[in-house]
Amino acid sequence: LSYGVASNWHSIAIVGVGLIGGSVGLALRERGLARRIVGIGRRKEPLERAMHRGAVTETTLDLAGGVREAELVVVSRPVERIVEDVREAAAHCPATAVITDAGSTKRAIVEGLRDLRRDGAAFVGSHPMAGSQKSGVEHAAADLFSGRTTVITPDESTSAEAIRRVRGFWSALGANVVTLSPADHDEVVATISHLPHAVASILAASTPVEHLPLAATGWLDTTRVAAGDVDMWRQILQQNRECVLQSIHRFGKLLEGFVTALEQEDGEAIAEILAIGKQRRDALAD
Amino acid sequence: LSYGVASNWHSIAIVGVGLIGGSVGLALRERGLARRIVGIGRRKEPLERAMHRGAVTETTLDLAGGVREAELVVVSRPVERIVEDVREAAAHCPATAVITDAGSTKRAIVEGLRDLRRDGAAFVGSHPMAGSQKSGVEHAAADLFSGRTTVITPDESTSAEAIRRVRGFWSALGANVVTLSPADHDEVVATISHLPHAVASILAASTPVEHLPLAATGWLDTTRVAAGDVDMWRQILQQNRECVLQSIHRFGKLLEGFVTALEQEDGEAIAEILAIGKQRRDALAD
Repeated sequence: LSYGVASNWHSIAIVGVGLIGGSVGLALRERGLARRIVGIGRRKEPLERAMHRGAVTETTLDLAGGVREAELVVVSRPVERIVEDVREAAAHCPATAVITDAGSTKRAIVEGLRDLRRDGAAFVGSHPMAGSQKSGVEHAAADLFSGRTTVITPDESTSAEAIRRVRGFWSALGANVVTLSPADHDEVVATISHLPHAVASILAASTPVEHLPLAATGWLDTTRVAAGDVDMWRQILQQNRECVLQSIHRFGKLLEGFVTALEQEDGEAIAEILAIGKQRRDALAD
Repeated sequence: LSYGVASNWHSIAIVGVGLIGGSVGLALRERGLARRIVGIGRRKEPLERAMHRGAVTETTLDLAGGVREAELVVVSRPVERIVEDVREAAAHCPATAVITDAGSTKRAIVEGLRDLRRDGAAFVGSHPMAGSQKSGVEHAAADLFSGRTTVITPDESTSAEAIRRVRGFWSALGANVVTLSPADHDEVVATISHLPHAVASILAASTPVEHLPLAATGWLDTTRVAAGDVDMWRQILQQNRECVLQSIHRFGKLLEGFVTALEQEDGEAIAEILAIGKQRRDALAD
């Protein structure tokens, strides 16, 4: 099994070793793709757990020192922290390095990094669409990205070489890499991920506690993502607020139509909405 | 393994051998609880599939003939058909028989059967909360009810003996049997099952087709139930319309609050809604 020359690294730095960062480390190690994997964090304890799980080969609390020899830096932090940490990584890593992230929003991040000095390390935005309602390195998995989509979001200023290297990196972890503009990415994930999260949370929050004992698979499936980390999702929803509001608006219009149909006992209109939903859902597997 | 004398039957009739009716038959046979299991339907083909799967021991298109010797009749039909079929079963089964159903709504059904003659077979409403987005006897399973809740909904006119027999029946299939009034049942399942179904359908229907290729586990989980049978769910939502509208209203209020919080960039208010949703979801397992 060969991933080509470009997919083998001497040193990779991972800033933030939670579910995603930890899974990147585990995948690199399992596939034998990097000799050094430096786990960088703000607190000792998660770094120790990442080391214990074998997701990294060394750890440090010092971002500047940790990225000094990195050929590739993956910033896997809450979206509000990404711009800052990429800037710090860029200031201290080799000028030949490439930096990417794993944030669920892209426009604010890519725009926030547009003025990154051109003669230094390149940044290419990434979003591995392989999350979970669980967080932390204890839920990390070497196959998290395998067979799933990772979106990369270069803009007009990104070099072909940087794109090639970041694409090669995610491909080496088994991901299907798709390229979108930052704006297109944010619009698509608003409907495909951020709206479902908001709806699931609101659905769970609107359920009276005393009804919970009767919850069966339908409620459990529909609300599953509401168990996700609150602050992580608060940041994502706020950062992609315009697209999320558009998606909610579209959802709200259909909800209003459904209420009217139900109030007027218009069976045909109810069935029509259910049929469109079924058609969309049946287009994908279980 | 003994389920007691009351849980062993000579002859049980199942009207409608789809996912639920078929699973009742499979569970009865696997547990050796009934000698004769008569599958009754309106079309030959599903009956043949039920026979082929071993869910019934004989089949007939003639409801009157099929229930003639039944000690217990389970009417597992779309909710709009249940009252009619229970009446027909009651008119032809032994006066000592007990009849139950498996409908997802209870008030309309129990009220629709209140005038059933008192000197004949007794009816006790049931709702095994063990559905699936899949339908048909090919997805039936002997363990579908095992460890899951079945709600039974006797009213003030139901005899203790009939309640005991229907409770014993579902218990014998492995279900945890809970008793609720028909009105309480409908209110609880509106929030715990019918609202999630409506929300999942609307969410799926509001997703632009061109965004579907990027759908990941979040969208798939949140919309899973939208794949359910359209007419079955149209009937359920219409029959429980008042409670469903109340649930949608509660959901809609929270959705409005969320939109306002997002528009005003009120991070605390967003986090509060997400936190309540997470708290509700975390109260239950995966």
